[in-house]
Amino acid sequence: MNLLLIEKEEVGRDSTVVLRDRRADHLRKVLKVEPGRMLRVGLVGGLEGQGTVVAVDAEQVALTVEISAGSAPPSTVDLIVGLPRPQALHRVLQTAAVMGIARLDLVNAWRVEKSFFQSPALGPEKIHRQLLLGAEQGRKTRLPEVVCQKLLVPFVRGLEDPVPTLRLIADPAAEANLEDVVAPRLESVERFVVAIGPEGGWIDRELQTFQEEGFSPVGLGPWILRVENAVTAALAQLELVRRDRRS
Amino acid sequence: MNLLLIEKEEVGRDSTVVLRDRRADHLRKVLKVEPGRMLRVGLVGGLEGQGTVVAVDAEQVALTVEISAGSAPPSTVDLIVGLPRPQALHRVLQTAAVMGIARLDLVNAWRVEKSFFQSPALGPEKIHRQLLLGAEQGRKTRLPEVVCQKLLVPFVRGLEDPVPTLRLIADPAAEANLEDVVAPRLESVERFVVAIGPEGGWIDRELQTFQEEGFSPVGLGPWILRVENAVTAALAQLELVRRDRRS
Repeated sequence: MNLLLIEKEEVGRDSTVVLRDRRADHLRKVLKVEPGRMLRVGLVGGLEGQGTVVAVDAEQVALTVEISAGSAPPSTVDLIVGLPRPQALHRVLQTAAVMGIARLDLVNAWRVEKSFFQSPALGPEKIHRQLLLGAEQGRKTRLPEVVCQKLLVPFVRGLEDPVPTLRLIADPAAEANLEDVVAPRLESVERFVVAIGPEGGWIDRELQTFQEEGFSPVGLGPWILRVENAVTAALAQLELVRRDRRS
Repeated sequence: MNLLLIEKEEVGRDSTVVLRDRRADHLRKVLKVEPGRMLRVGLVGGLEGQGTVVAVDAEQVALTVEISAGSAPPSTVDLIVGLPRPQALHRVLQTAAVMGIARLDLVNAWRVEKSFFQSPALGPEKIHRQLLLGAEQGRKTRLPEVVCQKLLVPFVRGLEDPVPTLRLIADPAAEANLEDVVAPRLESVERFVVAIGPEGGWIDRELQTFQEEGFSPVGLGPWILRVENAVTAALAQLELVRRDRRS
């Protein structure tokens, strides 16, 4: 836990927060906090600040919080991911939160097992919990917006870009790498959407639909990656190309 | 499973292989193989070829295998990773196998919990199993060599490079990114060693030791990544820079 995340509703009138859940456990057992200990805190959805532990007992940890810093600018990367199996979904959600994705669409596809859409792991509270774990790790206050899309084609056809956007789709058969496609467009785009297929990949018709809607295929390397690794690889490569050009 | 991996000792005199373990389960239940089905097979440690299913029953799956293709060239990337907690270790091992790492040294460090070295997850059979899972996913026949290093400093001081090698260490505070360091050296090196810290990162003295032994610090991006994500991010960025220059 690199940031103690608090929901706005948890902050009392006198800026006191009383924790009784896994966060209290973590503060007591892992960080071994005592009264007076200062901690970096964040409010889910935006602002950051500092907390001071005022009381610790077996049941709870109480803090006063002072929100001082503004929020980091919103992310400029959205993800579209073929819905993975529940265990992998946890890691995709955490990774999306760690890496500060703005929005994650979990989409159906030919090679997505239909039963995955019935998984309890897709419950809003379960998703929120994984996002919180990622945000705490990644020191982020903004959580990705996560939406399930059971109908792939209407979803892709209906995508709209609020600002100039580069649309990418990871495809092991692509001849271009991410730099080939992104570098020439860096000056003109403000936002990226990256689509990552399910285990087994997209089928040709799906790839074609994405391409018809302006998604450029990019290869990430000579590997057959699991979905969660492909997400990390794509975002890491995108960051390298962008940072390289910014500096 | 994108490749059926077989140990050399499993191949009988008449090129028959009889599987009774999780591979047989996977072939029956997931791939639903029947006699006559052809499969891509690999021998652990090298060669590739083709298998033909000859018999399937509730207990076993029998195949004949024909080893035809040579082996892919050995990888030119080694990893050094601060020993992570057992759950994360599984993913690091699988990722190393998927991404075709030649050697993985799991090292002690100030911020490695000492109890992790007692974990059953470090048993040779447990490690081998995770490597096999990764290799099956990544369609690799070579498994990384995995070694535990309980003494960090003597290990780093004693590292030797069989061929011209670029040594990198991931460091969130580094000013250089991976391309800054790697691109100018691509022509002159044949091998890379990448060091990734434990949860919480390296301490300054450790970073200094690595730097004294020629490791160049590189930042991977503006994130605080989990160990397994940092491994993927570093290898994905290295691949991008290398592919970019090769093409």
